[in-house]
Amino acid sequence: MEDHITTCIGSPNIAFIKYWGKRNEELILPTNSSLSMTLDESINTKTSVTLSKNLKGDSIFINMEEQKPESKSAYKLFSIMRYMKKLASTDKKISVISENNFPTSSGIASSASGSATLVYALSHALNLNLSQRELSIIARQISGSACRSIFGGLVMWERGILEDGSDSFAKQLFDNNYWSDLIDIIAIVSVDKKKISSRAGMKKTVETSPLYKTRPEIAEINLKTAIQAITNKNFDELAGVIMRDSNNMHATMRDTYPPIVYMNDISNQIVNAVNVLNDSLSEKICAYTFDAGPNAHIITTKSNENMVMNMLHEVKGIKTILHSGVGFGPRLIQK
Amino acid sequence: MEDHITTCIGSPNIAFIKYWGKRNEELILPTNSSLSMTLDESINTKTSVTLSKNLKGDSIFINMEEQKPESKSAYKLFSIMRYMKKLASTDKKISVISENNFPTSSGIASSASGSATLVYALSHALNLNLSQRELSIIARQISGSACRSIFGGLVMWERGILEDGSDSFAKQLFDNNYWSDLIDIIAIVSVDKKKISSRAGMKKTVETSPLYKTRPEIAEINLKTAIQAITNKNFDELAGVIMRDSNNMHATMRDTYPPIVYMNDISNQIVNAVNVLNDSLSEKICAYTFDAGPNAHIITTKSNENMVMNMLHEVKGIKTILHSGVGFGPRLIQK
Repeated sequence: MEDHITTCIGSPNIAFIKYWGKRNEELILPTNSSLSMTLDESINTKTSVTLSKNLKGDSIFINMEEQKPESKSAYKLFSIMRYMKKLASTDKKISVISENNFPTSSGIASSASGSATLVYALSHALNLNLSQRELSIIARQISGSACRSIFGGLVMWERGILEDGSDSFAKQLFDNNYWSDLIDIIAIVSVDKKKISSRAGMKKTVETSPLYKTRPEIAEINLKTAIQAITNKNFDELAGVIMRDSNNMHATMRDTYPPIVYMNDISNQIVNAVNVLNDSLSEKICAYTFDAGPNAHIITTKSNENMVMNMLHEVKGIKTILHSGVGFGPRLIQK
Repeated sequence: MEDHITTCIGSPNIAFIKYWGKRNEELILPTNSSLSMTLDESINTKTSVTLSKNLKGDSIFINMEEQKPESKSAYKLFSIMRYMKKLASTDKKISVISENNFPTSSGIASSASGSATLVYALSHALNLNLSQRELSIIARQISGSACRSIFGGLVMWERGILEDGSDSFAKQLFDNNYWSDLIDIIAIVSVDKKKISSRAGMKKTVETSPLYKTRPEIAEINLKTAIQAITNKNFDELAGVIMRDSNNMHATMRDTYPPIVYMNDISNQIVNAVNVLNDSLSEKICAYTFDAGPNAHIITTKSNENMVMNMLHEVKGIKTILHSGVGFGPRLIQK
């Protein structure tokens, strides 16, 4: 029997309503529901899974770097891989090769993209025939926001209320064609690896920020506002809540002890430029949002792309600009 | 009758527990009590008041610049001056000349220092014989934190509960000799005038930050912790609460819409350097705190001054470093 290679492609998502904080560390159950847009394939993780009896052991390479099974960043990947192999009742060894075409660990959700694509590729390689809901629950347990990258379009991760996490998964609210005018313009201001991981950072926030206590409630209110705005295709309202929710999350990070600061002076200049542009038009035509890193995501529409680009060209210190529409989610490209 | 010149000197204060937000805009009544250390005379405002029948009208010069009575920043100064003249039943004209020996409007409380020294000087020039409590209430109505600079040492501003503000004034908790080892090392990273005034900024925070709702309660808890730490001369505990309260205030600023960001990359590098130094000693020997500006105040003790200076010398981008012990409050230097 020959070795099988299965290759899948998937993308990060950018959260409009943020996930920052767990109620269960082990199962990765969040304190609030969240909402994101899946990016398109121009920003992707490509993951190839080789199943073979001839391999010495399981291995995972991310961006050409071999992951150690016992390392903090990779042990979840290996344990989920073992879990999925068990589901498939196979004793074959697995070799995973995963590549991002965008900077890793710098506020573009590489862990979401990587983990979701891995779970998706393994399920195909192992012929597991799992539902998207099941894939989402598995991906969640590697990296919370990965559960959203199992779907394309505009995606909600419902926090759930059960202790075992069986009701904490993402679902697609609107597909990628619903509001295909939406785009994410990503201004890369730094590709340095972040000093504090999202996992460690959010744990510290939950443990030490007095302001964080009200964050889950605020996020749920913001979520309702965002869904309403998307339902009505009211960009002005959507932009407002996207920016407020990003501010809110980064505020709880600042309130953490010691404080967590992912945004830098250039990030803050972009925030300011967005506000100046929107104010000059008396209408919000774009929104900034920042994940756990300094890189700005500017959510806007295709019709306003030029105006946003002109605005960004005025900000000094931006290294690269990426563009993405709404993606349709992970897919199989070779088997 | 000859013209009388009265000259007084006063100093800013650095808040350990911050004031950020009013419950009454006109009377300047805060949402929470606050606590500060008055700086010594090496950092000062010198204010000369000339009373004369020969002047055409009242005038105020701050750092050589004539203030317009109708301007946003000066109308309170003029209205308090008229109020104090009325108390003294004089129809003489007043000329005020006020000079700061430190950068204005950049996070060193120039308005606190200037307003407190003005009120103090006017009361002497007008022979008003007011109590420190009365002076504190008057100073509060120009610029909230000015009410604390009426006193030396470690000073608490009690928020009060009355609607007319008659119970909202500062008092000295500990005089300047109580813990004379305490010092404030001020790292100036920018002398640019801040883009948003404290007055406008805190109003926006109260109006738009969802997280701010819990700030007053958190500040009151921090205040109790700080007073306890000072009572016990427990520097480690005091340092912890100073840093947490600064983080907390700046977090509510970030949560404001649009967000208010006073701290810059150099400020954040100083925060990080303080944490690294304290961690290396397994004891907090210094604390950072930031008012509405990017300049760092490092609260420490004389015995650890060298260690803090060595730490600051490693941070690139600091323009000047000022040092201050605990001051004894405003005083008359010429009449």
